Amino acid sequence: MPIVHVHLIEGPSREQKESMIREVSQAISRSLASPMERIRVIIHEIPRSDFGIAGEPASKLHP
Amino acid sequence: MPIVHVHLIEGPSREQKESMIREVSQAISRSLASPMERIRVIIHEIPRSDFGIAGEPASKLHP
Amino acid sequence: MPIVHVHLIEGPSREQKESMIREVSQAISRSLASPMERIRVIIHEIPRSDFGIAGEPASKLHP
Amino acid sequence: MPIVHVHLIEGPSREQKESMIREVSQAISRSLASPMERIRVIIHEIPRSDFGIAGEPASKLHP
Amino acid sequence: MPIVHVHLIEGPSREQKESMIREVSQAISRSLASPMERIRVIIHEIPRSDFGIAGEPASKLHP
Amino acid sequence: MPIVHVHLIEGPSREQKESMIREVSQAISRSLASPMERIRVIIHEIPRSDFGIAGEPASKLHP
Repeated sequence: MPIVHVHLIEGPSREQKESMIREVSQAISRSLASPMERIRVIIHEIPRSDFGIAGEPASKLHP
Repeated sequence: MPIVHVHLIEGPSREQKESMIREVSQAISRSLASPMERIRVIIHEIPRSDFGIAGEPASKLHP
Repeated sequence: MPIVHVHLIEGPSREQKESMIREVSQAISRSLASPMERIRVIIHEIPRSDFGIAGEPASKLHP
Repeated sequence: MPIVHVHLIEGPSREQKESMIREVSQAISRSLASPMERIRVIIHEIPRSDFGIAGEPASKLHP
Repeated sequence: MPIVHVHLIEGPSREQKESMIREVSQAISRSLASPMERIRVIIHEIPRSDFGIAGEPASKLHP
Repeated sequence: MPIVHVHLIEGPSREQKESMIREVSQAISRSLASPMERIRVIIHEIPRSDFGIAGEPASKLHP
Protein backbone atom coordinates (compact mmCIF):
# COMPACT_ATOMS: atom_id res chain seq x y z
CA MET A 1 0.00 0.00 0.00
CA PRO A 2 2.73 2.49 -0.92
CA ILE A 3 1.90 6.21 -0.77
CA VAL A 4 4.21 8.58 -2.62
CA HIS A 5 4.43 12.37 -2.32
CA VAL A 6 6.44 14.11 -5.06
CA HIS A 7 7.40 17.77 -4.54
CA LEU A 8 8.31 19.64 -7.73
CA ILE A 9 9.02 23.17 -8.77
CA GLU A 10 5.98 24.21 -10.82
CA GLY A 11 6.26 23.94 -14.57
CA PRO A 12 5.90 20.38 -15.88
CA SER A 13 3.15 19.87 -18.46
CA ARG A 14 0.08 17.74 -17.84
CA GLU A 15 1.62 15.06 -20.10
CA GLN A 16 4.88 15.06 -18.12
CA LYS A 17 3.00 14.69 -14.84
CA GLU A 18 0.85 11.92 -16.25
CA SER A 19 3.87 9.98 -17.44
CA MET A 20 5.63 10.62 -14.13
CA ILE A 21 2.68 9.17 -12.19
CA ARG A 22 2.71 6.08 -14.42
CA GLU A 23 6.49 5.52 -14.37
CA VAL A 24 6.90 6.10 -10.62
CA SER A 25 4.00 3.71 -9.89
CA GLN A 26 5.55 1.05 -12.14
CA ALA A 27 8.96 1.54 -10.48
CA ILE A 28 7.41 1.04 -7.03
CA SER A 29 5.36 -1.94 -8.18
CA ARG A 30 8.38 -3.65 -9.76
CA SER A 31 10.90 -3.07 -6.99
CA LEU A 32 8.58 -3.85 -4.06
CA ALA A 33 6.39 -6.48 -5.75
CA SER A 34 3.38 -4.32 -4.89
CA PRO A 35 0.18 -4.44 -6.99
CA MET A 36 -0.29 -1.28 -9.12
CA GLU A 37 -3.84 -0.74 -7.88
CA ARG A 38 -2.63 -0.19 -4.32
CA ILE A 39 -0.20 2.63 -5.20
CA ARG A 40 -1.02 6.32 -4.74
CA VAL A 41 1.13 9.19 -6.08
CA ILE A 42 0.42 12.75 -4.98
CA ILE A 43 2.14 15.65 -6.76
CA HIS A 44 2.77 18.89 -4.87
CA GLU A 45 3.68 21.67 -7.33
CA ILE A 46 5.62 24.40 -5.55
CA PRO A 47 6.00 27.98 -6.86
CA ARG A 48 9.64 28.94 -7.60
CA SER A 49 9.48 31.58 -4.88
CA ASP A 50 8.55 28.93 -2.30
CA PHE A 51 11.26 26.36 -3.07
CA GLY A 52 14.51 27.19 -1.29
CA ILE A 53 17.83 25.80 -2.53
CA ALA A 54 20.99 26.58 -0.57
CA GLY A 55 19.25 29.42 1.26
CA GLU A 56 17.75 31.16 -1.79
CA PRO A 57 14.37 30.80 -3.48
CA ALA A 58 14.67 29.02 -6.86
CA SER A 59 13.15 32.14 -8.45
CA LYS A 60 16.40 33.99 -7.70
CA LEU A 61 18.71 31.16 -8.73
CA HIS A 62 17.09 30.40 -12.09
CA PRO A 63 15.09 33.54 -12.89
CA MET B 1 0.13 17.97 20.38
CA PRO B 2 -1.19 16.01 17.37
CA ILE B 3 -0.63 17.44 13.90
CA VAL B 4 -2.74 16.06 11.09
CA HIS B 5 -2.25 16.47 7.33
CA VAL B 6 -5.22 15.46 5.17
CA HIS B 7 -4.67 15.08 1.40
CA LEU B 8 -7.86 15.23 -0.68
CA ILE B 9 -8.79 15.41 -4.32
CA GLU B 10 -10.09 18.95 -4.80
CA GLY B 11 -13.81 19.44 -4.69
CA PRO B 12 -15.26 19.43 -1.15
CA SER B 13 -17.25 22.53 -0.21
CA ARG B 14 -16.17 24.96 2.49
CA GLU B 15 -18.86 23.48 4.77
CA GLN B 16 -17.60 19.93 4.21
CA LYS B 17 -14.02 20.95 4.99
CA GLU B 18 -15.14 22.82 8.10
CA SER B 19 -17.06 19.82 9.39
CA MET B 20 -14.15 17.54 8.51
CA ILE B 21 -11.74 19.69 10.55
CA ARG B 22 -14.14 19.58 13.52
CA GLU B 23 -14.90 15.85 13.34
CA VAL B 24 -11.29 14.76 12.80
CA SER B 25 -10.15 16.94 15.71
CA GLN B 26 -12.83 15.45 17.96
CA ALA B 27 -11.88 11.91 16.87
CA ILE B 28 -8.22 12.56 17.74
CA SER B 29 -9.11 14.24 21.03
CA ARG B 30 -11.40 11.37 22.08
CA SER B 31 -9.18 8.46 21.11
CA LEU B 32 -5.88 9.92 22.39
CA ALA B 33 -7.24 11.91 25.36
CA SER B 34 -5.65 15.00 23.82
CA PRO B 35 -7.06 18.49 24.51
CA MET B 36 -8.82 19.98 21.45
CA GLU B 37 -6.84 23.23 21.63
CA ARG B 38 -3.58 21.38 20.94
CA ILE B 39 -4.75 19.76 17.70
CA ARG B 40 -3.89 21.11 14.25
CA VAL B 41 -5.45 19.87 10.98
CA ILE B 42 -3.99 20.97 7.65
CA ILE B 43 -5.89 20.23 4.43
CA HIS B 44 -3.97 19.80 1.18
CA GLU B 45 -6.37 19.95 -1.77
CA ILE B 46 -4.86 18.20 -4.78
CA PRO B 47 -5.97 18.76 -8.40
CA ARG B 48 -7.39 15.59 -10.06
CA SER B 49 -4.53 15.63 -12.56
CA ASP B 50 -1.99 15.50 -9.70
CA PHE B 51 -3.46 12.60 -7.71
CA GLY B 52 -2.34 9.24 -9.12
CA ILE B 53 -4.33 6.09 -8.41
CA ALA B 54 -3.03 2.76 -9.73
CA GLY B 55 -0.69 4.56 -12.15
CA GLU B 56 -3.24 6.98 -13.64
CA PRO B 57 -4.22 10.52 -12.67
CA ALA B 58 -7.69 10.63 -11.07
CA SER B 59 -8.71 13.01 -13.88
CA LYS B 60 -8.53 10.06 -16.32
CA LEU B 61 -10.21 7.55 -14.01
CA HIS B 62 -13.21 9.71 -13.07
CA PRO B 63 -13.38 12.35 -15.80
CA MET C 1 -9.32 8.83 -1.79
CA PRO C 2 -8.30 10.76 1.33
CA ILE C 3 -4.81 10.16 2.74
CA VAL C 4 -4.18 11.25 6.32
CA HIS C 5 -0.83 11.62 8.11
CA VAL C 6 -1.05 11.98 11.90
CA HIS C 7 2.07 13.13 13.79
CA LEU C 8 2.04 12.30 17.51
CA ILE C 9 4.45 12.44 20.39
CA GLU C 10 5.26 8.78 21.12
CA GLY C 11 3.34 7.12 23.87
CA PRO C 12 -0.22 6.10 22.91
CA SER C 13 -1.03 2.42 23.37
CA ARG C 14 -1.79 0.05 20.52
CA GLU C 15 -5.47 0.21 21.50
CA GLN C 16 -5.49 4.01 21.43
CA LYS C 17 -3.88 4.07 18.00
CA GLU C 18 -6.32 1.47 16.70
CA SER C 19 -9.31 3.43 17.93
CA MET C 20 -7.79 6.64 16.54
CA ILE C 21 -7.42 5.07 13.08
CA ARG C 22 -11.05 3.94 13.20
CA GLU C 23 -12.51 7.20 14.50
CA VAL C 24 -10.51 9.46 12.19
CA SER C 25 -11.48 7.32 9.19
CA GLN C 26 -15.16 7.49 10.17
CA ALA C 27 -14.90 11.26 10.68
CA ILE C 28 -13.44 11.68 7.17
CA SER C 29 -15.95 9.30 5.62
CA ARG C 30 -18.91 11.08 7.23
CA SER C 31 -17.88 14.65 6.56
CA LEU C 32 -16.67 14.14 2.98
CA ALA C 33 -19.09 11.35 1.93
CA SER C 34 -16.05 9.24 1.10
CA PRO C 35 -16.21 5.40 1.23
CA MET C 36 -14.30 3.96 4.20
CA GLU C 37 -12.34 1.53 2.02
CA ARG C 38 -10.64 4.41 0.17
CA ILE C 39 -9.25 6.07 3.29
CA ARG C 40 -5.65 5.65 4.49
CA VAL C 41 -4.33 6.84 7.87
CA ILE C 42 -0.59 6.82 8.55
CA ILE C 43 0.68 7.43 12.09
CA HIS C 44 4.11 8.97 12.60
CA GLU C 45 5.19 8.55 16.24
CA ILE C 46 7.79 11.15 17.14
CA PRO C 47 10.20 10.87 20.10
CA ARG C 48 9.74 13.63 22.71
CA SER C 49 13.25 14.91 21.97
CA ASP C 50 12.32 15.38 18.29
CA PHE C 51 9.06 17.30 18.72
CA GLY C 52 9.68 21.02 19.23
CA ILE C 53 7.07 23.23 20.87
CA ALA C 54 7.74 26.95 21.18
CA GLY C 55 11.45 26.41 20.51
CA GLU C 56 12.01 23.59 23.01
CA PRO C 57 11.86 19.81 22.64
CA ALA C 58 8.79 18.33 24.36
CA SER C 59 11.20 16.26 26.47
CA LYS C 60 12.25 19.48 28.26
CA LEU C 61 8.75 20.92 28.60
CA HIS C 62 7.07 17.80 30.02
CA PRO C 63 9.94 15.70 31.34
CA MET D 1 21.15 16.70 3.27
CA PRO D 2 18.37 18.27 5.34
CA ILE D 3 14.95 18.74 3.73
CA VAL D 4 12.56 21.13 5.43
CA HIS D 5 8.81 21.54 4.83
CA VAL D 6 7.25 24.68 6.33
CA HIS D 7 3.44 24.89 6.51
CA LEU D 8 2.08 28.42 6.91
CA ILE D 9 -1.27 30.13 6.83
CA GLU D 10 -1.25 32.13 3.59
CA GLY D 11 -0.33 35.75 3.82
CA PRO D 12 3.42 36.39 4.20
CA SER D 13 4.96 38.65 1.56
CA ARG D 14 7.52 37.45 -0.97
CA GLU D 15 10.20 39.27 1.05
CA GLN D 16 9.16 37.55 4.28
CA LYS D 17 9.27 34.14 2.61
CA GLU D 18 12.65 34.89 1.08
CA SER D 19 14.11 35.91 4.41
CA MET D 20 12.49 32.88 6.08
CA ILE D 21 14.13 30.53 3.55
CA ARG D 22 17.51 32.16 4.20
CA GLU D 23 17.27 32.26 8.00
CA VAL D 24 15.92 28.72 8.37
CA SER D 25 18.66 27.38 6.09
CA GLN D 26 21.32 29.20 8.11
CA ALA D 27 19.82 27.88 11.38
CA ILE D 28 19.96 24.31 10.07
CA SER D 29 23.46 24.76 8.68
CA ARG D 30 24.77 26.19 11.95
CA SER D 31 23.17 23.74 14.37
CA LEU D 32 23.84 20.59 12.35
CA ALA D 33 27.15 21.58 10.72
CA SER D 34 25.52 20.97 7.35
CA PRO D 35 26.72 22.79 4.20
CA MET D 36 24.20 25.42 3.01
CA GLU D 37 24.18 24.07 -0.56
CA ARG D 38 22.70 20.77 0.61
CA ILE D 39 19.68 22.30 2.33
CA ARG D 40 16.21 22.48 0.76
CA VAL D 41 13.27 24.44 2.20
CA ILE D 42 9.79 23.96 0.75
CA ILE D 43 6.99 26.34 1.76
CA HIS D 44 3.39 25.12 1.73
CA GLU D 45 1.01 28.09 1.97
CA ILE D 46 -2.35 26.97 3.32
CA PRO D 47 -5.62 28.92 2.89
CA ARG D 48 -7.16 30.05 6.21
CA SER D 49 -10.19 27.85 5.56
CA ASP D 50 -7.92 24.78 5.28
CA PHE D 51 -5.88 25.24 8.47
CA GLY D 52 -7.69 23.86 11.51
CA ILE D 53 -6.82 25.04 15.02
CA ALA D 54 -8.59 23.48 17.98
CA GLY D 55 -11.31 22.09 15.71
CA GLU D 56 -12.07 25.29 13.79
CA PRO D 57 -10.70 26.67 10.54
CA ALA D 58 -8.41 29.67 11.12
CA SER D 59 -10.80 31.70 8.92
CA LYS D 60 -13.40 31.51 11.73
CA LEU D 61 -10.97 32.17 14.56
CA HIS D 62 -9.27 35.22 13.04
CA PRO D 63 -11.74 36.49 10.43
CA MET E 1 14.97 19.48 -7.82
CA PRO E 2 12.32 16.82 -7.15
CA ILE E 3 11.89 15.56 -3.58
CA VAL E 4 10.04 12.30 -3.11
CA HIS E 5 8.65 10.83 0.12
CA VAL E 6 7.62 7.15 -0.07
CA HIS E 7 5.51 5.72 2.79
CA LEU E 8 5.59 1.91 3.03
CA ILE E 9 4.41 -0.74 5.43
CA GLU E 10 7.61 -2.06 7.04
CA GLY E 11 9.07 -5.21 5.59
CA PRO E 12 10.97 -4.67 2.32
CA SER E 13 14.58 -5.85 2.33
CA ARG E 14 17.56 -3.53 2.02
CA GLU E 15 17.99 -4.70 -1.58
CA GLN E 16 14.36 -3.95 -2.42
CA LYS E 17 14.62 -0.47 -0.95
CA GLU E 18 17.87 0.18 -2.80
CA SER E 19 16.36 -0.85 -6.12
CA MET E 20 13.24 1.17 -5.36
CA ILE E 21 15.34 4.31 -4.75
CA ARG E 22 17.15 3.75 -8.05
CA GLU E 23 14.09 2.97 -10.14
CA VAL E 24 11.95 5.78 -8.74
CA SER E 25 14.78 8.28 -9.30
CA GLN E 26 15.19 7.10 -12.89
CA ALA E 27 11.42 7.31 -13.47
CA ILE E 28 11.38 10.92 -12.21
CA SER E 29 14.47 11.83 -14.20
CA ARG E 30 13.07 10.38 -17.43
CA SER E 31 9.56 11.76 -17.21
CA LEU E 32 10.49 15.27 -16.03
CA ALA E 33 13.86 15.63 -17.80
CA SER E 34 15.43 16.25 -14.40
CA PRO E 35 19.12 15.43 -13.73
CA MET E 36 19.53 12.37 -11.46
CA GLU E 37 21.87 14.21 -9.09
CA ARG E 38 19.13 16.66 -8.11
CA ILE E 39 16.65 13.97 -7.02
CA ARG E 40 16.07 12.97 -3.37
CA VAL E 41 14.00 9.96 -2.26
CA ILE E 42 13.11 9.53 1.42
CA ILE E 43 11.59 6.26 2.62
CA HIS E 44 9.30 6.26 5.65
CA GLU E 45 8.79 2.68 6.89
CA ILE E 46 5.58 2.45 8.89
CA PRO E 47 4.80 -0.36 11.38
CA ARG E 48 1.73 -2.44 10.40
CA SER E 49 -0.08 -1.25 13.53
CA ASP E 50 0.37 2.38 12.43
CA PHE E 51 -0.88 2.10 8.84
CA GLY E 52 -4.67 2.31 8.66
CA ILE E 53 -6.56 0.93 5.67
CA ALA E 54 -10.35 1.34 5.53
CA GLY E 55 -10.46 2.15 9.25
CA GLU E 56 -8.35 -0.78 10.48
CA PRO E 57 -4.62 -1.10 11.14
CA ALA E 58 -2.90 -3.28 8.50
CA SER E 59 -1.82 -5.57 11.35
CA LYS E 60 -5.46 -6.67 11.73
CA LEU E 61 -6.17 -6.96 8.01
CA HIS E 62 -3.11 -9.04 7.09
CA PRO E 63 -1.96 -10.56 10.37
CA MET F 1 0.87 28.93 13.43
CA PRO F 2 3.83 27.60 11.44
CA ILE F 3 4.44 23.84 11.40
CA VAL F 4 7.87 22.67 10.30
CA HIS F 5 8.96 19.15 9.34
CA VAL F 6 12.74 18.60 9.12
CA HIS F 7 14.00 15.40 7.45
CA LEU F 8 17.59 14.46 8.36
CA ILE F 9 19.92 11.56 7.85
CA GLU F 10 20.21 9.96 11.31
CA GLY F 11 23.20 10.91 13.37
CA PRO F 12 22.91 14.34 15.02
CA SER F 13 23.30 14.35 18.80
CA ARG F 14 20.51 15.28 21.20
CA GLU F 15 22.25 18.63 21.77
CA GLN F 16 22.43 19.34 18.03
CA LYS F 17 18.75 18.55 17.60
CA GLU F 18 17.81 20.69 20.57
CA SER F 19 19.75 23.66 19.24
CA MET F 20 18.31 23.08 15.77
CA ILE F 21 14.75 23.19 17.15
CA ARG F 22 15.53 26.45 18.96
CA GLU F 23 17.33 28.16 16.08
CA VAL F 24 14.80 27.15 13.42
CA SER F 25 11.93 28.33 15.63
CA GLN F 26 13.66 31.68 16.19
CA ALA F 27 14.35 32.02 12.44
CA ILE F 28 10.65 31.44 11.68
CA SER F 29 9.51 33.76 14.44
CA ARG F 30 11.81 36.58 13.29
CA SER F 31 11.17 36.38 9.57
CA LEU F 32 7.40 35.90 9.76
CA ALA F 33 6.69 37.94 12.92
CA SER F 34 5.11 34.81 14.41
CA PRO F 35 5.01 34.26 18.20
CA MET F 36 7.42 31.50 19.34
CA GLU F 37 4.72 29.66 21.28
CA ARG F 38 2.76 28.97 18.09
CA ILE F 39 5.64 27.24 16.28
CA ARG F 40 6.03 23.47 16.04
CA VAL F 41 9.14 21.69 14.69
CA ILE F 42 9.03 17.94 14.02
CA ILE F 43 12.26 16.07 13.26
CA HIS F 44 12.15 12.95 11.11
CA GLU F 45 15.46 11.04 11.42
CA ILE F 46 15.96 8.81 8.40
CA PRO F 47 18.34 5.80 8.30
CA ARG F 48 21.16 6.20 5.73
CA SER F 49 19.80 3.22 3.79
CA ASP F 50 16.43 4.99 3.41
CA PHE F 51 17.66 8.37 2.16
CA GLY F 52 18.27 8.35 -1.59
CA ILE F 53 20.57 10.88 -3.23
CA ALA F 54 20.98 10.85 -7.00
CA GLY F 55 19.51 7.35 -7.19
CA GLU F 56 21.66 5.74 -4.46
CA PRO F 57 21.07 5.30 -0.74
CA ALA F 58 23.29 7.60 1.33
CA SER F 59 24.71 4.45 2.96
CA LYS F 60 26.45 3.64 -0.34
CA LEU F 61 27.61 7.19 -1.07
CA HIS F 62 29.13 7.90 2.35
CA PRO F 63 29.73 4.48 3.88
